[in-house]
Amino acid sequence: MKIAVLNPGSMGITIAAALKFAQNDVYWLNKSRSPATIDRVRTLDIHELGSLNQLGNMDGIVSVCPPDAAEAVAKQVSASGFNGLYLDANAIAPDTATRVAQIIGTAYVDGGIIGPPARTPGTTRLYLSGANRVQVQSWFKGSVLEVVCMDDSPNAASSVKMCYAAYTKGIGALILAIRALAKEKNVEEALLNEWNISQPDLPGRSEMIAKGSAAKAWRFSGEMREISQTFESGGLPGGFHQAAAEIYRRMSDLKDVPDPSLAQVIDEILCA
Amino acid sequence: MKIAVLNPGSMGITIAAALKFAQNDVYWLNKSRSPATIDRVRTLDIHELGSLNQLGNMDGIVSVCPPDAAEAVAKQVSASGFNGLYLDANAIAPDTATRVAQIIGTAYVDGGIIGPPARTPGTTRLYLSGANRVQVQSWFKGSVLEVVCMDDSPNAASSVKMCYAAYTKGIGALILAIRALAKEKNVEEALLNEWNISQPDLPGRSEMIAKGSAAKAWRFSGEMREISQTFESGGLPGGFHQAAAEIYRRMSDLKDVPDPSLAQVIDEILCA
Repeated sequence: MKIAVLNPGSMGITIAAALKFAQNDVYWLNKSRSPATIDRVRTLDIHELGSLNQLGNMDGIVSVCPPDAAEAVAKQVSASGFNGLYLDANAIAPDTATRVAQIIGTAYVDGGIIGPPARTPGTTRLYLSGANRVQVQSWFKGSVLEVVCMDDSPNAASSVKMCYAAYTKGIGALILAIRALAKEKNVEEALLNEWNISQPDLPGRSEMIAKGSAAKAWRFSGEMREISQTFESGGLPGGFHQAAAEIYRRMSDLKDVPDPSLAQVIDEILCA
Repeated sequence: MKIAVLNPGSMGITIAAALKFAQNDVYWLNKSRSPATIDRVRTLDIHELGSLNQLGNMDGIVSVCPPDAAEAVAKQVSASGFNGLYLDANAIAPDTATRVAQIIGTAYVDGGIIGPPARTPGTTRLYLSGANRVQVQSWFKGSVLEVVCMDDSPNAASSVKMCYAAYTKGIGALILAIRALAKEKNVEEALLNEWNISQPDLPGRSEMIAKGSAAKAWRFSGEMREISQTFESGGLPGGFHQAAAEIYRRMSDLKDVPDPSLAQVIDEILCA
């Protein structure tokens, strides 16, 4: 199968590698062609498409992009004359997935990726739902990316991704916000002493969360807004993840800061 | 010392017991005199005050009540002619503590309790701040309630309590909200399967949180609003705990339901 991965980032390039491993003919297309993307693609021997117009020759497309861009990418693909299967593997709300499905039509397959970039078997799962899910599953046969086929719902894979990231990325933002609050209220020492007694994992976890999320916070923010919208569309309060979006937004300038400390992260959060 | 504990609930009665253990003459006053309060007080041999007017004879007062009531209680005490030391041990925002301090005057001592009702040494700490903190600390000498003296700030103890509960009670509400969302979006099974692989403590934790918080949710809601206000007064987003307040508010009808299941808790959260 000829399959194109659009905008391959650190996750997308491992999706492309999995597709290649499963004997597909893999292409990539990224209008921005940032140095980081070029570096990533060079490590794999895959074909570059010069323009959106060449998508018409593809059997399949995988969209892996920041959640804010998912609809715009779908519109570009829809206008390109492409008529294969379209896997949207983005961290988007089920309502957003439904809108992408309306743009793409019957070729839409809903996806959600859980885990880090897929380099080792067992770490990373691609959830799929929708009518063509089994066909898309076959694209990844034998690769390190485990595929979990759900039902034919056009947005179940996005829903499970939203629920999952609501915890992992929500709790990260909450812990960093609490560290910032303790500093602002001048009770850091007392809080850390208490945590050392009764929540002994939290001092170390806050350090790890700061280091692990600083470079990625710029794109977590949009994902948090999608999760907030998911809660609200389900009649549940969206405030947890509106707040998480704001915390990650304040951290977005740390994107290119090498190895920032927790203290730096707290300062970014407080200097809104 | 003659010390009165106002409105002794499950926490307050252990505070009264600690005061008695430390050789104080302990009194209680509770206008509602609910059967649960009467039962609690009967287990301790402490004196009942018939009315607020009798507070004038006390050397100290401890206020332990739902956060929403802290200011009203302080106003009643202020009007009673009491002129000893007033310990507000409630889970209130530092701004609320400042308002209570303005009502009470120089006799105000800020407190925050961390841990379960104090029945075993080492489980429960009373944080104290403000000018008279050392004198209040001496009230509890040798008892199971450990006292941590902070600085002379009129609200540092409340601040550390807010930061602490922001995590423990915030995460509880978040996990229950996610379980409700997964049910509403019809992806419970997929989420639990994924959690079993990559977040294996969360299925069991959600059961425990539901059981542990159902009966107390009615009063957690006000505490979450105090925490939300604390974040906002510190220039940080208050949404996490606005959402948590709403989750606990929806659970408040479970106050008297014996041993509710997680499924019941989820239904309460979804039937807003």
